[in-house]
Amino acid sequence: MRKIHAIIPAGGAGTRLWPLSRRSQPKFLLDLMGEGRSLLQQTVDRLLPVSESVTVVTGAVHQQAVEDQLAGMGVTVLAEPSARDSMAAIGYGAYVVGEKYGPEAVVGSFAADHAIANQSAFEAAVNAAVRGGEAGYLTTIGIEPAEPSSAYGYIEPSALSIATDVYKVARFVEKPTPEVADRYVQEGYLWNAGIFIAEVGTIARALQEFLPQMDETLRVLAQKGMRSELWDSLQRIAIDYALAEPMAARGQVAITPAPVTMGWSDVGDFAALASLGAGGQPEVSIDSSGAVYLASAEVRGRVVATVGIPEAVIVETPDALLVTDLEHAQSVKKVTTWLNEHGRSELL
Amino acid sequence: MRKIHAIIPAGGAGTRLWPLSRRSQPKFLLDLMGEGRSLLQQTVDRLLPVSESVTVVTGAVHQQAVEDQLAGMGVTVLAEPSARDSMAAIGYGAYVVGEKYGPEAVVGSFAADHAIANQSAFEAAVNAAVRGGEAGYLTTIGIEPAEPSSAYGYIEPSALSIATDVYKVARFVEKPTPEVADRYVQEGYLWNAGIFIAEVGTIARALQEFLPQMDETLRVLAQKGMRSELWDSLQRIAIDYALAEPMAARGQVAITPAPVTMGWSDVGDFAALASLGAGGQPEVSIDSSGAVYLASAEVRGRVVATVGIPEAVIVETPDALLVTDLEHAQSVKKVTTWLNEHGRSELL
Repeated sequence: MRKIHAIIPAGGAGTRLWPLSRRSQPKFLLDLMGEGRSLLQQTVDRLLPVSESVTVVTGAVHQQAVEDQLAGMGVTVLAEPSARDSMAAIGYGAYVVGEKYGPEAVVGSFAADHAIANQSAFEAAVNAAVRGGEAGYLTTIGIEPAEPSSAYGYIEPSALSIATDVYKVARFVEKPTPEVADRYVQEGYLWNAGIFIAEVGTIARALQEFLPQMDETLRVLAQKGMRSELWDSLQRIAIDYALAEPMAARGQVAITPAPVTMGWSDVGDFAALASLGAGGQPEVSIDSSGAVYLASAEVRGRVVATVGIPEAVIVETPDALLVTDLEHAQSVKKVTTWLNEHGRSELL
Repeated sequence: MRKIHAIIPAGGAGTRLWPLSRRSQPKFLLDLMGEGRSLLQQTVDRLLPVSESVTVVTGAVHQQAVEDQLAGMGVTVLAEPSARDSMAAIGYGAYVVGEKYGPEAVVGSFAADHAIANQSAFEAAVNAAVRGGEAGYLTTIGIEPAEPSSAYGYIEPSALSIATDVYKVARFVEKPTPEVADRYVQEGYLWNAGIFIAEVGTIARALQEFLPQMDETLRVLAQKGMRSELWDSLQRIAIDYALAEPMAARGQVAITPAPVTMGWSDVGDFAALASLGAGGQPEVSIDSSGAVYLASAEVRGRVVATVGIPEAVIVETPDALLVTDLEHAQSVKKVTTWLNEHGRSELL
């Protein structure tokens, strides 16, 4: 069985993790777990055992930091002159792989800033998905829901088996209301973790049909090297809308389920971080069970005390202090919106 | 009418205002209102217009800081070698005043760390209380309750008038439960603000009877100057138990009521501070109405953001960060208890 060529689009600010995550120091570059490895480094660590090559596609402004973090790991770093959403980033990586390894190379896209606890479960899921990719399908790894979350899109699998542990996808659905999420979970829908595995040729044929201009441009860039004016002309569109949904409508998308025990997390907010055991407790915690304290290294050393704020979330950096609680973790992005609207973008 | 000789016992750590208030920098030395004057300075400012002399009695460790803050104000500063509670401190001040001005001098004791908004109402209350003192009574100023608080002791006035606006006291009662506080407020009880006004001779005669050893020791100290071994032998007792309660039982205590509009506050916790308008709001306040942010000057300058924590109280100093809310303001002292019990007394 072929190994994959991993493509890691590394973008996004992670505004729900402000003030730790910033434009200049986005979530994927941060060692949020305090383990000495950034989320990006951990993503590469996780992919190397199952990959023939690893390619990171990131913004030009982050190219140096990414190269520094991944030095000596044999990773190719491609720089985007501007952000053009995930279809352009993943497509560009796939076409570059295709130029070197041919159209039958199996590429797989993986977020740069997610966490997966169980490596062997992850490898089993990737291997199953490669079978779907080899069979000509755009194959995703669907995460068995740990709860009826309304923070993720869902995928409805069909009963139709393509290969061992691989099924045709019936449809992709958007982030649901809590009530609808309940129903999805009962009916066996899986979380969409943004993982797509396919042969380069499968992606290229679909792009030729759905987005011929993007196919043409990406082909030129992959053959002749990056040219900003061409790149900047690319349509901004997510791979979900560009490929996954229209291909699913034609029965060309497959899914392999990954169990809850794989321990996938999008590390999407401070509640997710806390559930992964990141950070610590306030040194003094009075009537504040479940309180969480996170600080960048420069500000550690003060005594931190909470009184009567259960599940408090306290986060500090040299220039910012955030106080919230686990229940409001998703609302932290409102702070970045406020800062942007009030001329404080230097804090973003 | 005679002016008073004001006595200000300046002690107490103000543990409910940790981490702003510390052993080395207690509440009375702090400019908590950000007005450029400490609570002690404001207390002296308030007393000078109604006083013939002002005497501060403070711990030896704070003598220098007190003298520095009150330089040029004509205030006498007496140092206590050790803390011996309010009867010793006030009695010592009264006997020193008596040596200089005679037994008919009217002394008045006032806390060093309270706030009063309305100066003319305060002066009217002091003038009324002096009439009670001149009539031979230990006279207190009772604060008309703004709410049925269980944070203060109460005083039951009788209908028996001693002089204009001065009534005999029926009894003193301890801090009540909320239900009992409701009843006290309905029945016209007043808050005990720890203000006592009397002739030196009245105090001396009562001490001779109730605490003859203390009377003897204070007399020696006032005549011959402070001697630590004598001072340290004094009984630790509050003036409330030493004089106010036993004298009230004999009909020797009077009270003048001060209206809510005098704006008295004991500045007892962060809720009281907030209601006085101290501190500011977090710069970014999302779904956190009534949130309060207080910081010592050294740590100002960071952006502070709250999300979903109404009435949050965030307080920071270079070595400590406290997160609580107005409802738990009284529980902040539990932090100092914890620190003391866990070998972190350098933070007290």
